[in-house]
Amino acid sequence: MSRLAHRKKTKSQGRPIGLSRRVYAPSLTDILENCLGKRVLWSWLACIPLALAIVVSWVAAAHAQDRSLTTEGVKAVLDNIWVLVAAILVIFMNAGFGMLETGFCRRKNAVNILAKNLIVFALTTLSFWAIGFSLMFGGGSGLIGSGGFFLSSGDISTYGIDRLNPNLTVTTFFLFQAAFAGTAATIVSGCVAERIQFSSFFIFSLLITGFSYPITGHWVWGGGWLSEIGFIDFAGSTVVHSVGGWAGLMGAAFLGPRIGKFQNNQVRAIPGHNMSISTLGCLILWIGWFGFNPGSALAANTAVPYIATTTNLAAAAGGVAATVTSWRVFGKPDLSMLINGILAGLVSITAGCASVSYQGAVLIGLIAGAIVVFAVSFFDSVRIDDPVGALSVHLVCGIWGTLAVGIFDLEKAGVHQFMVQLMGVGVIGLFTVILSSIFWQILRSTLGLRVTPEEEMVGLDIGEHGIEAYGGFHKEASDMEGY
Amino acid sequence: MSRLAHRKKTKSQGRPIGLSRRVYAPSLTDILENCLGKRVLWSWLACIPLALAIVVSWVAAAHAQDRSLTTEGVKAVLDNIWVLVAAILVIFMNAGFGMLETGFCRRKNAVNILAKNLIVFALTTLSFWAIGFSLMFGGGSGLIGSGGFFLSSGDISTYGIDRLNPNLTVTTFFLFQAAFAGTAATIVSGCVAERIQFSSFFIFSLLITGFSYPITGHWVWGGGWLSEIGFIDFAGSTVVHSVGGWAGLMGAAFLGPRIGKFQNNQVRAIPGHNMSISTLGCLILWIGWFGFNPGSALAANTAVPYIATTTNLAAAAGGVAATVTSWRVFGKPDLSMLINGILAGLVSITAGCASVSYQGAVLIGLIAGAIVVFAVSFFDSVRIDDPVGALSVHLVCGIWGTLAVGIFDLEKAGVHQFMVQLMGVGVIGLFTVILSSIFWQILRSTLGLRVTPEEEMVGLDIGEHGIEAYGGFHKEASDMEGY
Amino acid sequence: MSRLAHRKKTKSQGRPIGLSRRVYAPSLTDILENCLGKRVLWSWLACIPLALAIVVSWVAAAHAQDRSLTTEGVKAVLDNIWVLVAAILVIFMNAGFGMLETGFCRRKNAVNILAKNLIVFALTTLSFWAIGFSLMFGGGSGLIGSGGFFLSSGDISTYGIDRLNPNLTVTTFFLFQAAFAGTAATIVSGCVAERIQFSSFFIFSLLITGFSYPITGHWVWGGGWLSEIGFIDFAGSTVVHSVGGWAGLMGAAFLGPRIGKFQNNQVRAIPGHNMSISTLGCLILWIGWFGFNPGSALAANTAVPYIATTTNLAAAAGGVAATVTSWRVFGKPDLSMLINGILAGLVSITAGCASVSYQGAVLIGLIAGAIVVFAVSFFDSVRIDDPVGALSVHLVCGIWGTLAVGIFDLEKAGVHQFMVQLMGVGVIGLFTVILSSIFWQILRSTLGLRVTPEEEMVGLDIGEHGIEAYGGFHKEASDMEGY
Repeated sequence: MSRLAHRKKTKSQGRPIGLSRRVYAPSLTDILENCLGKRVLWSWLACIPLALAIVVSWVAAAHAQDRSLTTEGVKAVLDNIWVLVAAILVIFMNAGFGMLETGFCRRKNAVNILAKNLIVFALTTLSFWAIGFSLMFGGGSGLIGSGGFFLSSGDISTYGIDRLNPNLTVTTFFLFQAAFAGTAATIVSGCVAERIQFSSFFIFSLLITGFSYPITGHWVWGGGWLSEIGFIDFAGSTVVHSVGGWAGLMGAAFLGPRIGKFQNNQVRAIPGHNMSISTLGCLILWIGWFGFNPGSALAANTAVPYIATTTNLAAAAGGVAATVTSWRVFGKPDLSMLINGILAGLVSITAGCASVSYQGAVLIGLIAGAIVVFAVSFFDSVRIDDPVGALSVHLVCGIWGTLAVGIFDLEKAGVHQFMVQLMGVGVIGLFTVILSSIFWQILRSTLGLRVTPEEEMVGLDIGEHGIEAYGGFHKEASDMEGY
Repeated sequence: MSRLAHRKKTKSQGRPIGLSRRVYAPSLTDILENCLGKRVLWSWLACIPLALAIVVSWVAAAHAQDRSLTTEGVKAVLDNIWVLVAAILVIFMNAGFGMLETGFCRRKNAVNILAKNLIVFALTTLSFWAIGFSLMFGGGSGLIGSGGFFLSSGDISTYGIDRLNPNLTVTTFFLFQAAFAGTAATIVSGCVAERIQFSSFFIFSLLITGFSYPITGHWVWGGGWLSEIGFIDFAGSTVVHSVGGWAGLMGAAFLGPRIGKFQNNQVRAIPGHNMSISTLGCLILWIGWFGFNPGSALAANTAVPYIATTTNLAAAAGGVAATVTSWRVFGKPDLSMLINGILAGLVSITAGCASVSYQGAVLIGLIAGAIVVFAVSFFDSVRIDDPVGALSVHLVCGIWGTLAVGIFDLEKAGVHQFMVQLMGVGVIGLFTVILSSIFWQILRSTLGLRVTPEEEMVGLDIGEHGIEAYGGFHKEASDMEGY
Repeated sequence: MSRLAHRKKTKSQGRPIGLSRRVYAPSLTDILENCLGKRVLWSWLACIPLALAIVVSWVAAAHAQDRSLTTEGVKAVLDNIWVLVAAILVIFMNAGFGMLETGFCRRKNAVNILAKNLIVFALTTLSFWAIGFSLMFGGGSGLIGSGGFFLSSGDISTYGIDRLNPNLTVTTFFLFQAAFAGTAATIVSGCVAERIQFSSFFIFSLLITGFSYPITGHWVWGGGWLSEIGFIDFAGSTVVHSVGGWAGLMGAAFLGPRIGKFQNNQVRAIPGHNMSISTLGCLILWIGWFGFNPGSALAANTAVPYIATTTNLAAAAGGVAATVTSWRVFGKPDLSMLINGILAGLVSITAGCASVSYQGAVLIGLIAGAIVVFAVSFFDSVRIDDPVGALSVHLVCGIWGTLAVGIFDLEKAGVHQFMVQLMGVGVIGLFTVILSSIFWQILRSTLGLRVTPEEEMVGLDIGEHGIEAYGGFHKEASDMEGY
């Protein structure tokens, strides 16, 4: 097998690519242009301006050389392998969100939600590679990062990785962070479900992961000003979850509720179409969180299983608390509340997973599980239509989890820390609300945000994508009428 | 980013939490009480007596300090990371069981089965954290463990981890073992499906994972008397699978069969509603078993891939054997038999995965795959209604796999070992049957076990949870009539 | 717990198994024969001729001893653990292919496709264990490997592992390679869906993974002649994907199109029945590819996250390009094209994932995403019926990805390398076409290949397996009529 032999020979991958090597790319373009027609070829290239920079011959950011076999070298490899495995688990969360949200919505919009949740990580990968990663982790001021766009630097100091764990390669850190950015974007998807135009969501995903999320993320994780005043958000209750929640809140507000949700001053429950895949989604998210939180240690060490344990305790407590709360309040144990309770526990332990005790984790989860039940009613009462409960889970419990660090942190809990947490939650929320409002407003003025009422009644699957999710299954009458 | 800096500062997590730090918890409780109403707040707290101990200020069980960089230290981290990854795979098995069982049952009970399979790991996490882990691994007699409840000790010797692999942290070992406990409980779920009250299952899950499973587990894995006489069950054919099977058998016996299953002296097949998710569940379980068996090495070493290979061979052989057997016996290759055959192979290799040859693994799997086909018929013939075949897979093949160690173990096979295995199977079975019968009887006398015939006909989704799994899909007439 | 103690005692597993230890196997066979009847017992044994060799008492291939704790030893364990995790991810791809293909086909054939995709890895495991692994990696000529059948050797040099990474155990390498072989076979499954007899697919799977795939694989990865002339296929764009594609192409050609696909000189779209599970399948495949490509480094090193990053960039680019292309060409963004675009990006980066730049990866993916849209139309235009688009994804983009190494490889790109790549694609394609044609022809002449038109109209679930996938869901009229 030529693999290893091949690998050894390619040790000079770090050098610039000579122009002589690129000679085939243009001719290939010519061939494609002839085959496909100029319009098609360039239209998809034009839609991805990120790709334009590709023709420039820059320094290829190659992976680091294999180290000679020292204990330090083995530990470095272990760090990278673990964080990569964690990144894979976080990327798997896209399947979790996709199944969860699709199942919680109506059958007639399933293809649309699936398409949104699937493409959002593809878009995030490209925008975060081109811009977002540099704005978040590149050197610069305490307000915004810069430099090393398109992963053009192979030097870990360009992205501040030397401050975090000098063992990590640029690629390991990038992949892990890109997976996180995708999570923020996918939360928005749930809030705007069943009524947004696919094209507007497409562009918004690029904007939030390319600009909004990276800037506030820089403040906390990129060495920015919030980290300097002591704001603690270990794995992203605020940096990821409440940011996604705020952007989604504004999306839901700009869009307005789905037709029929608030009729005659009454709130009408619009049940989902597939609780099996929603439950599957919840369980995928549960194990995905074992990448999300423990992976945020950014190293392989004994903190990792500790974090996994607090994470698991909070998830369990959240699920049980939401079930019992819904049982008492509504008379029956509600599966969707059980699902959202588990997620509430997970979101709320995210900020403090490394620094609270087991019993703190259980309490944080219990409270989150109760909160989420009442939060769902709250958003209904203020006429914000959040089809899958994403605001109750990610926004409300993201805030709760961040504040909980001020209460339960084994080292730092106290009035001062609580106030710092509160301020962090506030400024990141404010910034995200403002910036995402600008994005939503621009999209409303140009592409338009919402599908037509006719399309909404028939379902976005037909209107936006031209196919249905479940061929061969007879529809219920009520579904035909638009519910 | 403040993460690493933060981590370094929290090195004193192991010390007792001063009262001054807890001052917010009571006031938070007051606030919650005012907001939510006393009844709601305390009702869910009261339902989780485990949480009551939380107000006691005990020593926080902190994770161990990062070791200075030695070869031993790197190996220790690697051990923990691998066992954590294995634990994540085992936790993912909850999704496997959930999809498998839901798909094998009827549409009208899908929400109920999903809810049971989802909450069971949440309940297990809490009960095993509070009590079960200590009964199973805490020091004590050869009959029952004790000490270190609520993970209150950070010392690995409290839980006998020093005897197993001193590199593992308490948290790594706890999470791995909690995942195993959840598996035992979720097996019961399948046996009692489509007719049990949700509340009774809820309590039974706490009881089996808090008391029954840990005690028999202590005998084998906690240094108890069965391990001392040489009983071998490497990863739990008996400790996990047959225990879950015996408890489920008693549940099925106490409940009686579903309405219509045994009519006019005939066995009526009640087909499932979603073979797609059942097949998905099988494949998730397959990869979950790569955590279950190889992770039971409790260390990262070269035994791990060997165990993975025997596990995979047995799964493959079981699937092929069950398919061919069902093809010959019933005339067509049955998908549900293929699924159960793979699981039969996996369950039966679990006891001996580390100590049999490849051909031994294949033979164990082949025999299991044939056994499972006939076991399904056997339980029908004795009028035990096991909706998803869980008894045939977990109980029968769990026993077979444990005995197979006496036949195929490369080192120990022989009459003596076979008799030891037989005795272990017998006493663990007897104990589990007696204790779970007591549990089921208490539940029958208090909460009641079975839903009303009316609810069973309409479906437990409406009766127990008030929602249906598949909105927007027209029902078949036969499903309306209760099938 | 007896585990560790037990493990230490079994250190002599490598020695031959004495006959005295095997005394129970025959008596067990006797017992089984009496219980089950001679016909049943021997029929399934006879169907698996691989099992016949088991009675021979050979040297058990035991796993290597745990090394004493050196840095080299820890690194060796880390290599094995990482490649095992990668193997698990690749095995999980069976769930991805199963869900993807089932969802893209019609409801009436769901059980059949699920059964095919589930059993294919079981069959592959057994045939690759018995024969395939030795033909691919055993020593021998540049044309075909040999030796060490049934994993009978525990010496890594028997399978050439010493040339690749002497740290890997035989079991780690076998499991990883068996997972790859399964992928090649499962690709065929999609091409022949909805019309092939289950029995013919069953046998063909054994033949391709036992003989065809291993021989061409030997040429590239087993030290054969293509590797010696410099052909580069890092993780299998050609070795796995185009091989599966060629075999599937011949299957589709031998079978002919589904009834109604090409009517009155028109191509009729036959939509799938469950886009939710297809999307889930795509996301499972996405994360599975993080085992497929980075795992092909066959070691834990810093190349691993680099490869994961190029893989992810190409997947993202492929998904976006296919969406935009389908949007422009068909007027709406097509979910099935988004799914196939992501897979097209993944397949096409597979050959060059370790040796192209980030921008090279993006370009490879973008082009693959556009190609796949037009390839679907191409196969329709030549009247090859490929129900799930497997040829467009795996064959066409497998070829594209292999050739792309000649264009984008940072070290080797150039006319010479391009020609070598072209030749490798050609000869492997030619060999696979010829050998699989022989297999298909033999099957057609003996078992027959295609189900009857009546069975095809009613659905293969009833005809081949006697059950339906979705009980309790009312069928649409059109589905009853055979669509």
